[in-house]
Amino acid sequence: MSNFHTEYDFRFGRFPTRVIIRREIPPLEQILKDSAALGYCFSGHLLICDEHTEIFARRIADGAVCVLKSGEEEKTWASVERILKAAKDRGLGRDGLFIGIGGGVISDLAAFAASVYMRGARLCIVSTTLLGMADAAVGGKTGFDLFGIKNLAGTFFPARIVYMPLESLDTLPEYEWKSGMAEIIKTAVLDWGNKPEPPACMHDFFSACRRLRAGSPPGVFPDHLYNLNPEELFECITRSVGFKGRIVEADPEETGGKRALLNLGHTFAHALEASLGLGSISHGEAVAWGLARSCELGFSIGITSEEQMLEIKEVLALYGYETAAPYPLLKDMPFFMRALDGDKKKSGGRLSFIVPCETGAVSVKPGAGLPPDYLHVVEKILAGKL
Amino acid sequence: MSNFHTEYDFRFGRFPTRVIIRREIPPLEQILKDSAALGYCFSGHLLICDEHTEIFARRIADGAVCVLKSGEEEKTWASVERILKAAKDRGLGRDGLFIGIGGGVISDLAAFAASVYMRGARLCIVSTTLLGMADAAVGGKTGFDLFGIKNLAGTFFPARIVYMPLESLDTLPEYEWKSGMAEIIKTAVLDWGNKPEPPACMHDFFSACRRLRAGSPPGVFPDHLYNLNPEELFECITRSVGFKGRIVEADPEETGGKRALLNLGHTFAHALEASLGLGSISHGEAVAWGLARSCELGFSIGITSEEQMLEIKEVLALYGYETAAPYPLLKDMPFFMRALDGDKKKSGGRLSFIVPCETGAVSVKPGAGLPPDYLHVVEKILAGKL
Repeated sequence: MSNFHTEYDFRFGRFPTRVIIRREIPPLEQILKDSAALGYCFSGHLLICDEHTEIFARRIADGAVCVLKSGEEEKTWASVERILKAAKDRGLGRDGLFIGIGGGVISDLAAFAASVYMRGARLCIVSTTLLGMADAAVGGKTGFDLFGIKNLAGTFFPARIVYMPLESLDTLPEYEWKSGMAEIIKTAVLDWGNKPEPPACMHDFFSACRRLRAGSPPGVFPDHLYNLNPEELFECITRSVGFKGRIVEADPEETGGKRALLNLGHTFAHALEASLGLGSISHGEAVAWGLARSCELGFSIGITSEEQMLEIKEVLALYGYETAAPYPLLKDMPFFMRALDGDKKKSGGRLSFIVPCETGAVSVKPGAGLPPDYLHVVEKILAGKL
Repeated sequence: MSNFHTEYDFRFGRFPTRVIIRREIPPLEQILKDSAALGYCFSGHLLICDEHTEIFARRIADGAVCVLKSGEEEKTWASVERILKAAKDRGLGRDGLFIGIGGGVISDLAAFAASVYMRGARLCIVSTTLLGMADAAVGGKTGFDLFGIKNLAGTFFPARIVYMPLESLDTLPEYEWKSGMAEIIKTAVLDWGNKPEPPACMHDFFSACRRLRAGSPPGVFPDHLYNLNPEELFECITRSVGFKGRIVEADPEETGGKRALLNLGHTFAHALEASLGLGSISHGEAVAWGLARSCELGFSIGITSEEQMLEIKEVLALYGYETAAPYPLLKDMPFFMRALDGDKKKSGGRLSFIVPCETGAVSVKPGAGLPPDYLHVVEKILAGKL
């Protein structure tokens, strides 16, 4: 595994997607060659990046680059319009290739722009953050924020080809590590107890997350997890992509309930993010805290074992995540409860939670796993009175 | 057929679409009942209309209506954003129903908004213009104009249910009749020589177009074609929808070449519209003129028979369309030729034309049906020197 090269071929609904996990940022010729090998012919290409990833884009660019400002607050229609304008100015046709180089924001924006340009152009993502690799770059969800709501506008539009170059993680700030690692741990929980895969691996995914953290002091996030433990990091990313890809293949547009499992921890996390104000804490910190709450909810309704709950919390703490309830910064509990309740709208009028179990996780709803007084249970959990 | 009620069930790619051609604007309860019968459950609904169709929307509305300004120049992101805001303010979830009541602009805008709201809500279209019924409301193309380019941004997103209430045609201005009728005649050409369907019909689709015009003075467009000849109009719309629906079912996202046949006349029409300035003439007038040019191109390369060419031009003239080349308002021929050439980008770098033939129409390209000096041939046709 030390050559650091894995490829996956998925099919997310309408299109096939190839994911290539490798060591270096691919040169432009490599991207075009790989794409051609998949049978796509392009009328041109456009590189899209932000201020942080401009250095990667310029390294491989052969012409104009569309550089956006960095940050979640740039995830707007104005940014989408800038990308569409750049594509039009370069004369891209509907078979033009949009190449987004960056983290979750850039991949969501570039993917949305590609999905609507002439009713759908071609898309390549070079994912440069751990969160991007663990989540945004795989699965076809695109979008931008509108009226203060995350991803209110978006599409399902999978990239044709996704690169995950490990070298880009080398300079990632701690904030970004915390953002991505929680999604990886979440995915490892979903993959709970599964036999190792590929066969060469001797431990399950969750153990791999634990091993990745070994050798550095607990509670302090190392700047260079990549340098410290590259093999374990490579394994965690590879498994995370493989697991998520298979889930999305089974339910590409979240209509069948299977993809909803990926929301483990997210019902609590979204309400926490809304309560604290978008951007106050990293998405990963919110997910880690939400994952701990999901364990407690699962435990209180007899689905999650005490052993599993403690093990998950232990690994989250190992990575320095705040896992205690109530969340220290959370002051307005009624607002939190209303925000939690607002999640109902996304799931057809019934609030649902995903909770860990022996085989990964299950979805529970009022009347289907959740007792009638579940809001009371949730309030106790949030107050740290489980 | 005099009950004026026909239903089609299509499947355009991802979703099934039911099209209901009927006499009256359906009451809201009917829309919700029909939708429920198709198995959709909704978290709410939003009516979208423009100034012209507000009267229909208010007649059936049970609450707030999103009213946009009328006109192609309103086909912008700002209009899309207004719809999304109205949906959010009404608390629609991802299973909320967007109901667009209007012509091509409203159905394209409402459909685009529905396609991106929470990554895809539900869509119903009540099509109130002949062009909408003949074209925009069926087939899943959505979009809006950007940077002066028609539908630069868009998606493929079929409505779940489409109503075509004939009563709405009763007040349609002549401009709208001319816009829609050309698309119907174009579709009748594509259906050339086909056996009547349903079996009760005694004539082919093209003859039906001729019969629809009978009884009113040639060259003058009757305001009330609906009142004059309702049975023939009903038949033309029904056949047009049936034919287009089957084409789109075979090639929902225009990747297989079959859907491209619907562009008969449009390569010339788009260049004419660009040369004269968007909105100077109705889309239908441009299509009718382009259809005449396609006949001449087909005739000059030995694909369209002289008889077919003359018959098509005769019916176009019967409806009062300008079919002579050069187009009277067209002054800048080099601009026209560049605009024509610009169409290449949409079709992967090769300019293609659709030309009529005995079995409907075929696509021709340089090296595949078109001779090397085809641009010279086109120039002669445009100059009226065929």
